[in-house]
Amino acid sequence: MKEINVGIIGFGTVGAGVADTLLKNSELIAKRMGFRLVLKRIADLDITTDRGVQVPQELLTTDAFQVTDAADIQVVVELIGGTTFAKTIIQRAIEHGKSVVTANKALIATYGEELFNDAARKGVDIGFEASVGGGIPCIKALREGLAANHINQIYGILNGTCNYILTKMENDRADFEDVLTDAQKNGYAEANPALDVDGIDTAHKTAVLASLAYGKWFTAKDITTEGIRDVTLTDIECAARMGYKIKLLATIKSEGTAIELGVHPALVPASSLLGNVSDVFNAVWVEGDVVGKTMYYGRGAGRQATASAVVADLVDIGLNLCNGCSRRLPAFPCYSEGLQPTEFATRFYIRLLVEDKPGVLAKVGTIMSRHNISLSSVSQDESGQGQGEVPMILLTHQASGDAMSLATQELAALSEIHATPVVFRIENAL
Amino acid sequence: MKEINVGIIGFGTVGAGVADTLLKNSELIAKRMGFRLVLKRIADLDITTDRGVQVPQELLTTDAFQVTDAADIQVVVELIGGTTFAKTIIQRAIEHGKSVVTANKALIATYGEELFNDAARKGVDIGFEASVGGGIPCIKALREGLAANHINQIYGILNGTCNYILTKMENDRADFEDVLTDAQKNGYAEANPALDVDGIDTAHKTAVLASLAYGKWFTAKDITTEGIRDVTLTDIECAARMGYKIKLLATIKSEGTAIELGVHPALVPASSLLGNVSDVFNAVWVEGDVVGKTMYYGRGAGRQATASAVVADLVDIGLNLCNGCSRRLPAFPCYSEGLQPTEFATRFYIRLLVEDKPGVLAKVGTIMSRHNISLSSVSQDESGQGQGEVPMILLTHQASGDAMSLATQELAALSEIHATPVVFRIENAL
Repeated sequence: MKEINVGIIGFGTVGAGVADTLLKNSELIAKRMGFRLVLKRIADLDITTDRGVQVPQELLTTDAFQVTDAADIQVVVELIGGTTFAKTIIQRAIEHGKSVVTANKALIATYGEELFNDAARKGVDIGFEASVGGGIPCIKALREGLAANHINQIYGILNGTCNYILTKMENDRADFEDVLTDAQKNGYAEANPALDVDGIDTAHKTAVLASLAYGKWFTAKDITTEGIRDVTLTDIECAARMGYKIKLLATIKSEGTAIELGVHPALVPASSLLGNVSDVFNAVWVEGDVVGKTMYYGRGAGRQATASAVVADLVDIGLNLCNGCSRRLPAFPCYSEGLQPTEFATRFYIRLLVEDKPGVLAKVGTIMSRHNISLSSVSQDESGQGQGEVPMILLTHQASGDAMSLATQELAALSEIHATPVVFRIENAL
Repeated sequence: MKEINVGIIGFGTVGAGVADTLLKNSELIAKRMGFRLVLKRIADLDITTDRGVQVPQELLTTDAFQVTDAADIQVVVELIGGTTFAKTIIQRAIEHGKSVVTANKALIATYGEELFNDAARKGVDIGFEASVGGGIPCIKALREGLAANHINQIYGILNGTCNYILTKMENDRADFEDVLTDAQKNGYAEANPALDVDGIDTAHKTAVLASLAYGKWFTAKDITTEGIRDVTLTDIECAARMGYKIKLLATIKSEGTAIELGVHPALVPASSLLGNVSDVFNAVWVEGDVVGKTMYYGRGAGRQATASAVVADLVDIGLNLCNGCSRRLPAFPCYSEGLQPTEFATRFYIRLLVEDKPGVLAKVGTIMSRHNISLSSVSQDESGQGQGEVPMILLTHQASGDAMSLATQELAALSEIHATPVVFRIENAL
């Protein structure tokens, strides 16, 4: 039976998961695919810490180039993260004629164009299923399963840490900061949580999905990005009372040459499938012009789930190598010209803290009306009465983002409005 | 640019959808994939009816063999259904060295082993993504995306007609027969609905999924199959009160060499993702030993959704043809031996119509206890009181199917129980 030799660089959580999966399921994979994936070498600066997986000592090295340059390795798995040394080793592996598998969304979103050009020049593959949606085979679904479709829109819950925090805030009726601290203690959030909670990780993943869907390289710079630090328990509870959940949503919308790419906290119907994606789970919702609405759901991160996607890429590349058809599937074909960044009209949720006196609603209504924003619901909570100020929740019909910005500025300037207005999008088309 | 010539046999709903998709999106596919899918011929006995798609008259023929035997066609799409002439034309196309794409689950579940052996002998591919889950790329997810996983279990809502009927019964508070008649009028159910409502179509799809997941050919004969004719509005409402929905569920469970394959109406938590799959939508829930829980959702049938899957197969086969790697991915590798058909313990819902007099609960409890079935909940509805008989709902903890059958027989024999006990499974592991 043919063998495909694999080297891993980065023996952290995911690296250990990949090694474990290869050791555990290689025989099953061999029976299914007709070739064997053989774990040949693992490089990490730390090769002494116990990773909970039994790897023969002689496979371990502290020198990444022992993997990238090795004559006996056909596929290199990059799992060190970051965009500096990770880039170096991927390029070096490619120069040595090896295909590469990576889970590094930041790297692809930032240097994808360069790396995939390198791979094309050398005739090798880069697998990146694990870069979006963890173990969910969503890249494969988008590139292959939905190949017949123009993609109309994509919604994604793509960051497990944010989804865990938002779910926990709702379930425990807790504030963002408390849940974040707790998540950091339990290993669900990094010591520096910015990459997750500020939406940057989601923006990288959004760039990868958009580049695949629309045939043009997008980077995180093209994605309007907001995180979840401004989502309060009050908002989660107000949304719940109106039948919504708040999720950090990657939003990709397309119509003709107009395209919108964003990452925003957004209200989605509590009864929708996306509204029921909880905890660390991820989901990618894709609507195509032929297939209609589809959704892909699973664990978005973690040792095992990510390993499942990495090994699926190894299988794909192994099939190509065994059949002499590397680069069978074009990676990031660029074919789109003249795409226009656009902000499509959407619905909005607005929470105001207003002075409890006559005439405020009229002033608010006048401002909204002046900007042509029509309200679908207004609710003022009685619970705050007697303290001189009350929360007021407005839900709008479809409105332009520009109109909403101007209206929000005017609302904020009213002396009867006591705090900065909170504005989130509502996405109903799920 | 390379061209791959496609012939379609069967110009019904799906055939028209495939033709439409090829005419509409071939350019987009060409930009993405580097080759063009060209619609070369369409065969149907009726080539005069308007299918709502503009196909040049010279492409149409009434002779299927003008497609199967044509020197200028590389891939044949079989969309006539059934297991007789469909089999003939697929075998004839294969004999002529052509790859085949089919949406025919009955054919694969019945003659798959023979057809895939034929294809292997001639070195051609058979694509069958559209055979399960309509437009959802669930076959690709299972074969490729989850290739690294031993599959622990699969739950599927695989028949759009049944799911539409069950959703409609719940929403409109209507009886099965009324909704079925309505569905037949609206084209959501066939004049002869047996294939759908008796679970046979779901059993075919279950056989395909199980064969792929476990490396052994299963047919519908291996699937314990119940349909939805016995699901009453009363059961749907009782289930709803306890936080459940009733779905026709394909159930595949595996542990070691033990395997259970079934199609049953089952209660699933209303708050689970599967519980929120409504109307004609389908979903496939797959749990792997590495990836954990995943789910794939979309339209399970219909002209467009099915066409999306058929054309995805055409793209896959086109990539193989353009890269000289036909049969790159082994189709149905057979590697499992000694699998033991098993019935795993599960939870049950039991609805009894009992005489409203003292001592009945004790008798029911005694029977359940004798068979070692422990109850998690008992509820007796007050509404029936005064008429001499009342409905009683029992929910059990995990129990064996054999014990449950014996207990049900004894319950039915009690003079205080006035109708045949209704028993459905409860699937909580979602």
